[in-house]
Amino acid sequence: MKPLGPIPDGFVAVDGELAIGGRKASDLVAEAGATPLFVYSRDMLRGRAAALRDTMPERLGINYAIKANPHAPVLEFMAGLVDGFDVASAGELARLGEAGIDPAWVSFAGPGKRDEELEFAISASCTINLESEGEARRALAIAERRGVRPRLAIRVNPSFELRGSGMKMGGGAKQFGIDEERVPALARKIIAAGAEWRGLHIFTGSQALDAEAIIETQANVLALADRLAGEIGAALPKLNMGGGFGIPYFNGDTPLDIQAVGAALSDRFAELPDNLAATELCIELGRYLVGEAGVYLTRIIDRKISHGQTFLITDGGLHHQLAASGNFGTVVRRNYPLAIATHFDAVPEEEANVVGCLCTPLDRLADQAHLPRAEVGDLVAVFCAGAYGATASPADFLGHGPARQMLV
Amino acid sequence: MKPLGPIPDGFVAVDGELAIGGRKASDLVAEAGATPLFVYSRDMLRGRAAALRDTMPERLGINYAIKANPHAPVLEFMAGLVDGFDVASAGELARLGEAGIDPAWVSFAGPGKRDEELEFAISASCTINLESEGEARRALAIAERRGVRPRLAIRVNPSFELRGSGMKMGGGAKQFGIDEERVPALARKIIAAGAEWRGLHIFTGSQALDAEAIIETQANVLALADRLAGEIGAALPKLNMGGGFGIPYFNGDTPLDIQAVGAALSDRFAELPDNLAATELCIELGRYLVGEAGVYLTRIIDRKISHGQTFLITDGGLHHQLAASGNFGTVVRRNYPLAIATHFDAVPEEEANVVGCLCTPLDRLADQAHLPRAEVGDLVAVFCAGAYGATASPADFLGHGPARQMLV
Repeated sequence: MKPLGPIPDGFVAVDGELAIGGRKASDLVAEAGATPLFVYSRDMLRGRAAALRDTMPERLGINYAIKANPHAPVLEFMAGLVDGFDVASAGELARLGEAGIDPAWVSFAGPGKRDEELEFAISASCTINLESEGEARRALAIAERRGVRPRLAIRVNPSFELRGSGMKMGGGAKQFGIDEERVPALARKIIAAGAEWRGLHIFTGSQALDAEAIIETQANVLALADRLAGEIGAALPKLNMGGGFGIPYFNGDTPLDIQAVGAALSDRFAELPDNLAATELCIELGRYLVGEAGVYLTRIIDRKISHGQTFLITDGGLHHQLAASGNFGTVVRRNYPLAIATHFDAVPEEEANVVGCLCTPLDRLADQAHLPRAEVGDLVAVFCAGAYGATASPADFLGHGPARQMLV
Repeated sequence: MKPLGPIPDGFVAVDGELAIGGRKASDLVAEAGATPLFVYSRDMLRGRAAALRDTMPERLGINYAIKANPHAPVLEFMAGLVDGFDVASAGELARLGEAGIDPAWVSFAGPGKRDEELEFAISASCTINLESEGEARRALAIAERRGVRPRLAIRVNPSFELRGSGMKMGGGAKQFGIDEERVPALARKIIAAGAEWRGLHIFTGSQALDAEAIIETQANVLALADRLAGEIGAALPKLNMGGGFGIPYFNGDTPLDIQAVGAALSDRFAELPDNLAATELCIELGRYLVGEAGVYLTRIIDRKISHGQTFLITDGGLHHQLAASGNFGTVVRRNYPLAIATHFDAVPEEEANVVGCLCTPLDRLADQAHLPRAEVGDLVAVFCAGAYGATASPADFLGHGPARQMLV
C-alpha cells in the first residue's frame, strides 16, 4: 500500500459524492457532457485570495502568474481577486486580452522572447522583465522603431536561492534574468535611453512549503533590491518579489504557514530602507492561488485483475495530468491526492492501481492506493489539479484530445 | 562537459549547414515560414523500411504504430512502406481515415477503450485487441447491437518481459492485456460468440537496443503463442509479436543489430510449430521506423552568460521536446544528439547550455555541450525527433503554441 497525498480542505460529500462548489461530481459531469473534466471552484479561488489578503501586509500586491492556469473563465474571475497578472509569452498576453484584461496591468517574463513577442507586448504597454542585455537592446530598438516609450524592468538572477523549493530559479548559473552584479549598469542604460523604468523582478524558486525558507528569501530579496537600487542611483518604482508559495501534493506535506510569512513580511515592511520606501511591492503566485481549487474528474471504464492486483482504468490520464503521473520534474513518483468521487465518504476497503487510458506504462494516477470499492462508471477525482494540469500536459498524445474545463 | 547523444547516420553538411533530404536547414525553415519546425525525411523513412525488409524474414509483416508520429503526411507516406497500422485510440483511427487509410488495415490496442471508441472501431472493421474480459463483453454487445461481426484479437499480458527495454509492458501485474492463463477461456468465448477471431497481440516492451534480448523475447512470444493456440484449440489467424526495437539517443548507445534479429527470426520461422504454420505474423514498430527520420529545428534568440556559463536560448523547448528535456519517463537527464545546424561541419570550440524559451528550469535541450560557436539567429537541430516529439509534448504550455511540421 502506498499513501495518497492529502486532499485539500473544503471538499465535502453530498449524498455520498464529492461536491465541488456545492454541486455533486456526477451533476457537474452531466452538465459538462463528458469526462475527463477539470472543475475549478470559484469559492476556493475566492477563499485562497481572501486568506492571502488577511495575512499579507496590505501594501503587498498579489499578482497571478497565468502559466498555472490560463483557462479564460478563470482569468476573468481572477481579475476580480488580484492586483496584476504575469505572463510568460505573447500567447499568454493575448489570452488575457481575449479575457478583457488590460495589458497595462501585466508584466512579461521569460528567458526567450522573440522579436514579435517584444513588439506585441511593448505596443500593448505591458511591462517587460528584461532577461539579458541583448533582450534590452532588442526591446529598446523595437520601441524606438514604433515610437513608443517602453515599460521596462529587469529580472535579476540572484546569487541566493529559495531553500527547499521544488524548482530553483536563482543561485548559480541560470537562463533566467541577469546576474545581479550586471544589473545596475543595465538599469542605468535603460533609464538613460528614456524607457519608463519599472524596477526589478526577483524570482528565486517555486513550490516551497517551508515558511522559514520563504521568510529568509523575502528578506534576501528586499536587501538585494535595496542594494541594487542604491547602485542604480534611482528609486525603484516597483519590485516583484517572486512567488514560491507551495501547496501540499504528497503524503507528509503540510500546508505553508502563510500567517508566519505574512507576519514576517509586515515586520520588514515596517522598516523598509529609503530606497524601497515608495516602491510598489508585489508577489507573483500561480500554483498557490489556483492549484487546490481544481479537481480532475475521470470515469472508470474498466476494472481488471492482473497477477492479483486490481487496476481501475480511467478515460483520463497523463495527457491531462502529466505531473500527477510522475512525469514532469519528478525523480521518484508519489501519489497525488485522489479519491473515488462517487463514493467520497465511503471507507477504503481494497488496494487498487488507478491508471489512465493511454497505451504506456507511464500513465499512472495512483499506485497501490487504499480506496473504497469502485466499479466501471464510477468517477475518480484527482485533486490539486487547478495548476499545471490541462496546459502542462501533452493533450494530443495518442489522439484522445483535450479534457473539458469548467468554472463553478 | 557532458557528452551529446550520437547523431544518426545519413545527415550531411551542405555549404556548412545541416541538410535534410538534400536541403539546407535554413532553406527548410524559410519554406516553412518560421521556427520551431519538425522536419521529417522521406529518404530516411524509406531507408529504414528497406533495411527492415532486407533483414527480416519475408513472411514478417511490418506494422506502424502511429502513436510515434501521427502527422498526416507521414501517415500517407508510411502507407506505401508498411503492411498495417496500429492505433491506440479512436482519435488515431480517425487520423488514419483522414489520411485515406483503410481502417480494415488497422488494429486497435489500448487499456482504456471507451464504448464510443469500440463502436467506431467495430463499425469500421478495425481489429480490436481486447485488453480485458469486460472489454470483450462490451465489444460483443456493441457488435450485436449494430448487427456486425467484430474482428477481435486478444492482447496477452505475458509472464516474461523484454530485458533491457526502456518501457516494460509485460511481466507481472500490468494494465495491459489479459494475464496469459486467462487467455484461452476468453478466446474460446469470443469464437463461440461468432466474432471473427483475429488471434493474439503480445507486446513486451519498447526501446531495446540489445539484439539478444529481442531475439530471446521473440522466441518466448512464439512459444507462448503456440501454447495458447493449442489451449484455445483453434488455429491462430494472426500474431502481432510486438515491437521493442530501440534507437540510440544517448552517448554510449549503439544501434540495434537488426541483422542478428532478422537472422534469428528467420531460423525460428523455418521451424514453426503446426499451430503457427499458417499464422499471419507481424511486428509493430513506431519509434524504430520514424524516430531517426525527424529533426527539430529551433532558432537561437539569445546568447547570454550567467556565472561564467554560456546559455543559448532558443525559440523552442520542452513544449515540443518533452523527452529531450529529460521530463518524460526519464530518471536521470542525459543529452540527446544535438548540433548547431547552421555550423554543422564546424569544430566545437565552446561549452554551452542550450535551453528552451519556457520560463521553467525544466526546459533544457543540452547541458554543458561542446559546440561550435553559435550566435543569435543560428539554428539548433535536435535529432531523433521523429517519434514522440510534437504530440508527446505539452504544446499549449506557456502559450507558445505548436511547432510547424514538414515532410521533405
